[in-house]
Amino acid sequence: MTLQVELPKPTKKRLVQIFQLLQNWRGERIKSVEIAAVLGCKNSSVRHDLFLAGFNEGVSNGYKVCELKSFLEKILSFETSDSEKKKCCIVGLGRLGAALLDDSIFLESGFCVGCGFDSNVNRVEILRSTYPLYPTFEMDRVIKSEKIEYAILCVPDKDAQNMADKLVNAGVRRLVNMTRAYLIVPGGVKVTNASPVLALQKY
Amino acid sequence: MTLQVELPKPTKKRLVQIFQLLQNWRGERIKSVEIAAVLGCKNSSVRHDLFLAGFNEGVSNGYKVCELKSFLEKILSFETSDSEKKKCCIVGLGRLGAALLDDSIFLESGFCVGCGFDSNVNRVEILRSTYPLYPTFEMDRVIKSEKIEYAILCVPDKDAQNMADKLVNAGVRRLVNMTRAYLIVPGGVKVTNASPVLALQKY
Repeated sequence: MTLQVELPKPTKKRLVQIFQLLQNWRGERIKSVEIAAVLGCKNSSVRHDLFLAGFNEGVSNGYKVCELKSFLEKILSFETSDSEKKKCCIVGLGRLGAALLDDSIFLESGFCVGCGFDSNVNRVEILRSTYPLYPTFEMDRVIKSEKIEYAILCVPDKDAQNMADKLVNAGVRRLVNMTRAYLIVPGGVKVTNASPVLALQKY
Repeated sequence: MTLQVELPKPTKKRLVQIFQLLQNWRGERIKSVEIAAVLGCKNSSVRHDLFLAGFNEGVSNGYKVCELKSFLEKILSFETSDSEKKKCCIVGLGRLGAALLDDSIFLESGFCVGCGFDSNVNRVEILRSTYPLYPTFEMDRVIKSEKIEYAILCVPDKDAQNMADKLVNAGVRRLVNMTRAYLIVPGGVKVTNASPVLALQKY
């Protein structure tokens, strides 16, 4: 079962967040106000999202966690077959990038690693990986032929903008930026900043 | 030179973002509207932030990038001496956590790695690191004696909440969460989610 109707983007985002929240929830039941408190949104939004998604099992003392979890699992179709998973590429295979070449990180996420790129040809040859690794000069060809639209950027900060430009030219539309650099991208392309150091600095 | 006056939190956050943006800016000048477009805020906010910080060099055709950069570098005091750097700990030394045990990642961030923790005693002994590494059962003692308030959480998703609880009990007040788990923390404690996989799933 996958989504028959296209849900609004904010709803889909919140459903993903609710699903993740439930993984660690310690009670048997969870109320919409409790979900809203953790997610930082209105509880009416939570109820509306679940209504839109077709989950109508809510009662006054909360949703049953196991029911809601398995419902969201199906509807968000994270348990996709390998061929349905969305491919992302890891760009920059230093310590951080190489650490992401790991199946277990992407388990039940709906995503898989398609390949990795590094500008250092030696690094590409030395690294052991179950994914194909390529030198950067092959990036354009590989991304186009594999139709990869997602990339996780792990290059040094100073190379981030250059590499982002190349990725966008090759066809990548969604970037997760693990560097500290702020990226400037054309309309239609989205960037999420996920640098742990930048997160610390913002505190 | 460090900040004489305490700037409002949103201003400080934006100044950090502006500083990072300038690292990759390709022109000699940058306008407040250009900064605002990348940061996703109002250009009047940008001008107000820089005014509050004491940067009054703006002209109608934009700020000089090199001047603004060196001004922000000083005022945000990222180039702190080692003793002034804020210590964070890396919790969970799998591939991702181990990748963060790296000085170069924290360069000029105002932060440094104080130590690392892993529940696997063997892992702690085998990993080579310039930072002291401890088994998790020493976490409470070490964090209290070193007065560490920042932690980057890199444990498996299923252990995230438990470990966050222990960190908060030991005195950690600011968490960067690299796992996919949503964490529930008491008031006064802040969590920033920086999981690359969660970032992909939200697209």
